[in-house]
Amino acid sequence: MAIELYYWDGIQGRGEFVRLALEYAGADYVDVTREPGRGTDEMMELLDSSSEAHLPFAPPFLRDGDQLVSHVANILLYLGPRLGLSPQREDLRWFANGLQLTITDFVAEVHDTHHPIATSKYYEDQKEEAKARAREFVQNRLPKFLGYFERVLNQNPADHGHLVGKDLSYVDLSMFQVIEGLLYAFPKAMKGYAGRYPGLAALHGRVKALPPIAIYLASPRRLAFNENGIFRRYAELDLEP
Amino acid sequence: MAIELYYWDGIQGRGEFVRLALEYAGADYVDVTREPGRGTDEMMELLDSSSEAHLPFAPPFLRDGDQLVSHVANILLYLGPRLGLSPQREDLRWFANGLQLTITDFVAEVHDTHHPIATSKYYEDQKEEAKARAREFVQNRLPKFLGYFERVLNQNPADHGHLVGKDLSYVDLSMFQVIEGLLYAFPKAMKGYAGRYPGLAALHGRVKALPPIAIYLASPRRLAFNENGIFRRYAELDLEP
Repeated sequence: MAIELYYWDGIQGRGEFVRLALEYAGADYVDVTREPGRGTDEMMELLDSSSEAHLPFAPPFLRDGDQLVSHVANILLYLGPRLGLSPQREDLRWFANGLQLTITDFVAEVHDTHHPIATSKYYEDQKEEAKARAREFVQNRLPKFLGYFERVLNQNPADHGHLVGKDLSYVDLSMFQVIEGLLYAFPKAMKGYAGRYPGLAALHGRVKALPPIAIYLASPRRLAFNENGIFRRYAELDLEP
Repeated sequence: MAIELYYWDGIQGRGEFVRLALEYAGADYVDVTREPGRGTDEMMELLDSSSEAHLPFAPPFLRDGDQLVSHVANILLYLGPRLGLSPQREDLRWFANGLQLTITDFVAEVHDTHHPIATSKYYEDQKEEAKARAREFVQNRLPKFLGYFERVLNQNPADHGHLVGKDLSYVDLSMFQVIEGLLYAFPKAMKGYAGRYPGLAALHGRVKALPPIAIYLASPRRLAFNENGIFRRYAELDLEP
């Protein structure tokens, strides 16, 4: 039975971290809200259910047979061994989950650059505060996060090309997506990033060229970045580093 | 060998979710930065290490023998089965981890009520923005999160007193801490919350009365809430619901 991914249609958003793992592994999956004959109603019914025992708080969530799993890092922890995208060693699985949770925090901070005050309001209603938060992000948080992941790459005793262990893991795929998103949303701030973070830039390029990823990125299944998603290109939020 | 918890000294913060699990289970652990003869330097050395293979991004993190585990939800996922605080059923473990990650998001939003613009700046430098964010929090986010957890309690087919399955889990201990923190930081907004969220109020009371928790809360190991932590009492951020 196909794995069912539930996420908002029309954006990459947090669902994209799950899609990349499913696509890389060639998994049999359905993107429920984008499936002909199905849609967002089905997702909302589940979120509004007054009887579902394993109620998710928000998309994305996944259904695999009877198992419902919510939150990106939890979904990837669940899928990793099933898709051959988790390290074999148990100690490395704990490290991988910690890295994925740092990526989760990083992505939340990217989101808050355009929504620092209220997710219930439009960007235009919090534009001044967004400028201040984006300045902090570009000057302090972005280098802190990217610098950390660059160190993780360099300090990996197994291999200098992957974040965890010697093989590709779901964490590498997620890191690719973060960099891809940052290049879209903050082209000025990211200018010359390959000189500052050569390990991350190499990882980004390698993942992009992996055949299943390259095929996916060129397919209609890959939505374009847009200003409804997490990574948004607003010129006024982008600054030189 | 004792489990070593690394976290900032002087605040409950995110470390407290780990402490509550360790304390409830009576685990042999050391709160490294508060240990006589040790201190925050040791934690900073690890964070600054240029050779550590499993580098954490930030506290809290845990060392158990050779295993280093970072991020609260990851630490609790690791400790849960070892301390008898995880559900036995695998499907419920995935659900528990999803709930813990929702608690993580909730706690991050509490933090951002007093730091909506920059963690690198003082609260006083972002007070006006904090007021706007706190208004959004009290009016929209707080009821959304608490309403969700109340539904989870009510829709638990096993038991109406625990969030996951029929037994106490680390998720219940964390939920207690969130409510305790909210009662401290937002007394106005939380006024009468037991009428709106009777399940959560009962859970809070029950956890507080569990003997190992009651003993811990009365001990000098339990730090008081203060305005350096996540849950801060600033009258100007607290509103009627």
